[in-house]
Amino acid sequence: MQQTQSAPLATRLAHIEPFHVMALLTRARALEAAGRSVVHMEIGEPDFPTAEPVVAAGIEALRSGHTQYTPAAGLPELREAIAGHYRTRYGVAVPADRIIVTPGASGALLLGIALLVDPGAEALLPDPGYPCNRHFVAALNGVPRLLPVGPDSGYQITPQRLAAEWTPETALAMVGSPSNPTGTLAREGDVRALAAGAGARGGALLVDEIYHGLEYGTRAMTAAGMGDNVFVVNSFSKYFGMTGWRLGWLVVPPGYESDAEKLAQNLFIAAATISQHAALACFTDAAEAIFEERRRAFEARLEFLANALVELGFEIPGRPQGAFYLYSDCSRLTGDSFAFAERLLEEAGVAATPGLDFGDHRAAEHIRFAYTNSLENLREGVERMRSFLASR
Amino acid sequence: MQQTQSAPLATRLAHIEPFHVMALLTRARALEAAGRSVVHMEIGEPDFPTAEPVVAAGIEALRSGHTQYTPAAGLPELREAIAGHYRTRYGVAVPADRIIVTPGASGALLLGIALLVDPGAEALLPDPGYPCNRHFVAALNGVPRLLPVGPDSGYQITPQRLAAEWTPETALAMVGSPSNPTGTLAREGDVRALAAGAGARGGALLVDEIYHGLEYGTRAMTAAGMGDNVFVVNSFSKYFGMTGWRLGWLVVPPGYESDAEKLAQNLFIAAATISQHAALACFTDAAEAIFEERRRAFEARLEFLANALVELGFEIPGRPQGAFYLYSDCSRLTGDSFAFAERLLEEAGVAATPGLDFGDHRAAEHIRFAYTNSLENLREGVERMRSFLASR
Repeated sequence: MQQTQSAPLATRLAHIEPFHVMALLTRARALEAAGRSVVHMEIGEPDFPTAEPVVAAGIEALRSGHTQYTPAAGLPELREAIAGHYRTRYGVAVPADRIIVTPGASGALLLGIALLVDPGAEALLPDPGYPCNRHFVAALNGVPRLLPVGPDSGYQITPQRLAAEWTPETALAMVGSPSNPTGTLAREGDVRALAAGAGARGGALLVDEIYHGLEYGTRAMTAAGMGDNVFVVNSFSKYFGMTGWRLGWLVVPPGYESDAEKLAQNLFIAAATISQHAALACFTDAAEAIFEERRRAFEARLEFLANALVELGFEIPGRPQGAFYLYSDCSRLTGDSFAFAERLLEEAGVAATPGLDFGDHRAAEHIRFAYTNSLENLREGVERMRSFLASR
Repeated sequence: MQQTQSAPLATRLAHIEPFHVMALLTRARALEAAGRSVVHMEIGEPDFPTAEPVVAAGIEALRSGHTQYTPAAGLPELREAIAGHYRTRYGVAVPADRIIVTPGASGALLLGIALLVDPGAEALLPDPGYPCNRHFVAALNGVPRLLPVGPDSGYQITPQRLAAEWTPETALAMVGSPSNPTGTLAREGDVRALAAGAGARGGALLVDEIYHGLEYGTRAMTAAGMGDNVFVVNSFSKYFGMTGWRLGWLVVPPGYESDAEKLAQNLFIAAATISQHAALACFTDAAEAIFEERRRAFEARLEFLANALVELGFEIPGRPQGAFYLYSDCSRLTGDSFAFAERLLEEAGVAATPGLDFGDHRAAEHIRFAYTNSLENLREGVERMRSFLASR
């Protein structure tokens, strides 16, 4: 389908992949348009709309005419509110001037990697992991080096692994906690040791905490403030339920404030103003009550779906405790999770994301189920899979 | 102030400058906080709030719960509406699948340059020009090569200049029309010749049309559709008055659609959903009537301010016909426009942007006045400058 380009095409494009699940999603939409029912378990965003107090704050911001640019690093009151969030939730002091508000966590990842990665510099990343992370590195002409990880380490890079894999070209290591796709958390002691290990080698640690708040039976500790080489990415998308508003933030260590702000000016001008005003309402009791209620709903879904999937023959090692994903080992059911996902969609009307989207390591033996759907729909999805697996 | 970094700092940071005017703006805010009055003529965004029909559409989108992600390339109906805009305004057929909706023109510039520029590849840019353009090139490890331009060419790179300056390392040339900071337009024939010239050398032309619609006494022609190596950046910020909403778009030539979409997925996920729904209202008669009324207000300000500045001793060559800037040659008044801008602020209470922010070429002899302020305030600013200049 792709025509030949008549102008240059930068070589980075060869190192950046599309979201493979999009082909499945397009097919799912076509099936639905033709009258078929599809249970969606592939979607990486909460099924809940944005909480009412946040929507109301957005409407109020519009009514008040807050439609012009904010400062590049964000509304001062929002940066203060995020600093307050670190204080109250984690007991950690993060000064507001080290918090850069960005267009989504996407903007924060771009900023963080642009601050750290020169052409040819390496970033160590877990495989499986969030695919955009390696693509941001590639976009900025760095070299993403994927380290296969498994359930034995909670799908996390261990401090020992970092020490073994670090090379003179390595500039940083990245951690996702809770991880997408595995929902596993990095242990606080390990994150500290990773920061120290990277620091001892002159490198940085970038911790993706965008699923923070969505933890079940445990409470994640932030890496913000853990060291003067630690960068933290977070977002209003997941726990705070503001996906489409495109708002996130980057916490930089001391010394990076003005470089981060300069980059933000040039790359973004600023994050969306209405989103920033609305986000202030995330830190109210009324909004938090809703977020917590939703968190409990996710927890109930996790409980149900993990048990149901195991019963169907999937394995879910690695103890998922956060986010809204179950990265399921399907090797007892198939050796080709992509073809399996296609058949699940076509024959069972269930959409899920094959491992291919998260890396190379045992990707064909894994499939990610997102529990971003009602318990009722998840039950229906499980029954459809049960019939499908029985009839094969 | 800046501390030493404890982790790597990518070399691109050395090639990216902050907006120098920010120091002046901070000082202006401090003066205002202390009770002084400042006439703002430094600000690159319309003083008008977003038009009521667009705000109403934003509120309606929020009420309707449009708070989740859109497709990476944008809402299909918005891409169609933009395609319709090319049809009705310019009589040009641009298929919707070549239009990628982005977080501001900033996102479109990032996408376009990421598609085209490899490390070490050159981009030819006019000096003076919009500073972020060269910084996007530097961020992606390309080499911005600034070509000094003056009023003789309407501050534009000519086709002859392109031919003379193109090297084997050159990947693209960039044009801004109307230009920031000069307000000058590139001639349609020249843009076609630039596209052909770049094309003959295997390169691309990227045309920044973000001030389109804000033209006075003339009508700009779009470069979209001019050739299969032409990329066009546009925005809802300026004519459509949606700065803080952060919404723009990139038109790619045939063959780049899927690469552009893949990059947008990975770099942005998508532009803000509420902004996209609100932007649909930009293409209504009610909104257009407001935009045109504002355009006429800008035109009246241009007329007033250009004459007044010339009377004060500034020179404004190059025939500004668009945007909302007057790039004024102040060499008869000062040899140091930065110090001059500081004195204007401190002693006259007038804020303007020194040439330094737009490049190196005769930067110290130029200062940019933005007419993003009411005629009444512009009159006051002029009177303050008159007194200041008389008393020196």
